[in-house]
Amino acid sequence: MFTLYYAPGTCALASHLALEYAGAPYQTVRLDFPNKQQQSPEYLRVNPKGRVPALVTDLGTLTETPAILQYISQAFPQARLAPLDDPFLLAKANEFNSYLCSTVHVAHAHRVRGQRWADDAKAIEAMKKKVPEVIGAGFELIERQMFKGPWVLGERFGTCDMYLYTLGRWLNGDGVEISRFPKVADHAARMAADPVVVKVLAAQQAP
Amino acid sequence: MFTLYYAPGTCALASHLALEYAGAPYQTVRLDFPNKQQQSPEYLRVNPKGRVPALVTDLGTLTETPAILQYISQAFPQARLAPLDDPFLLAKANEFNSYLCSTVHVAHAHRVRGQRWADDAKAIEAMKKKVPEVIGAGFELIERQMFKGPWVLGERFGTCDMYLYTLGRWLNGDGVEISRFPKVADHAARMAADPVVVKVLAAQQAP
Repeated sequence: MFTLYYAPGTCALASHLALEYAGAPYQTVRLDFPNKQQQSPEYLRVNPKGRVPALVTDLGTLTETPAILQYISQAFPQARLAPLDDPFLLAKANEFNSYLCSTVHVAHAHRVRGQRWADDAKAIEAMKKKVPEVIGAGFELIERQMFKGPWVLGERFGTCDMYLYTLGRWLNGDGVEISRFPKVADHAARMAADPVVVKVLAAQQAP
Repeated sequence: MFTLYYAPGTCALASHLALEYAGAPYQTVRLDFPNKQQQSPEYLRVNPKGRVPALVTDLGTLTETPAILQYISQAFPQARLAPLDDPFLLAKANEFNSYLCSTVHVAHAHRVRGQRWADDAKAIEAMKKKVPEVIGAGFELIERQMFKGPWVLGERFGTCDMYLYTLGRWLNGDGVEISRFPKVADHAARMAADPVVVKVLAAQQAP
């Protein structure tokens, strides 16, 4: 049994989707981000980073979306969520997920968590101002160079699709029109219509 | 045959070390960062991100350090650079490498590449000012929570050690004394004395 710690609207959605697509036995624990529950002593014992996602397994706790996504893929190989039989293609999946984690997510965080990188209020405003440009450039690269179609890696649906959909949901708030990226927009529409995605989003929002 | 694109002093050192420890057949191409060769049309055809590392293989090109490190580990399993036989421990390796990539490296980049996230000169200065605090907190977490000893993951040496050593080399320039982190400092000293590390660093600095 897995336990996923998450908050609605965060990148933990990608791991939540992976658990559901994998058919994994899991439960979820929703953290109250507005009240900073992720910084509570109780949660810091689960994840000293004070962030989500955290996936508690029988073997220990995992953090970092790219690591969690590959782990779920390996734990449930019959779900075929990653190209485990092809090390190069698996590396391409990890390359994509690492780019989302270290560049795209980080760019977004400069709008909502600028205090991580500067104390000065004007500096934090200056970071916010540049977010549409930086996020736009990141998705431009995805659209033009990375996205194979119909899924991120080509014919095989997998964790990259869950993670891309998760971060693409932030575009509007970041001041970037998803319609600038036709392939990404079409992908997001197909994901949003998938019953698994509908189910997971509903569960995250349930009272 | 692999071709690694790198520049001295960058995170590409981790991939260079992995190739050497793996006993891989490889050549290197050094980019002239002071003259922005990483933004040249020629290099952008290799890696549209305009960054290093890029690893050209017979199957295609890989970027993103965590992805490259696992790929080299899988391509040369006899070198035992990652716990490929234990998916949970492999996930812990990927978790560590993802943390270095998306949090520690990103924190460092706010000292040297602040223009990625703000245009205003004062904002870029404000980011620089906070770097010692943010990098210090990152290494504090590594020292107290993540580092098992004698190597990052415990008894088995691997890619996490190469990547930690690579980013630890930036501490001094980031205004953080490595001696604050006794385990990390001891690890760095052992790495620096290893003939493979000595050889790779010498090759990177050779005229």
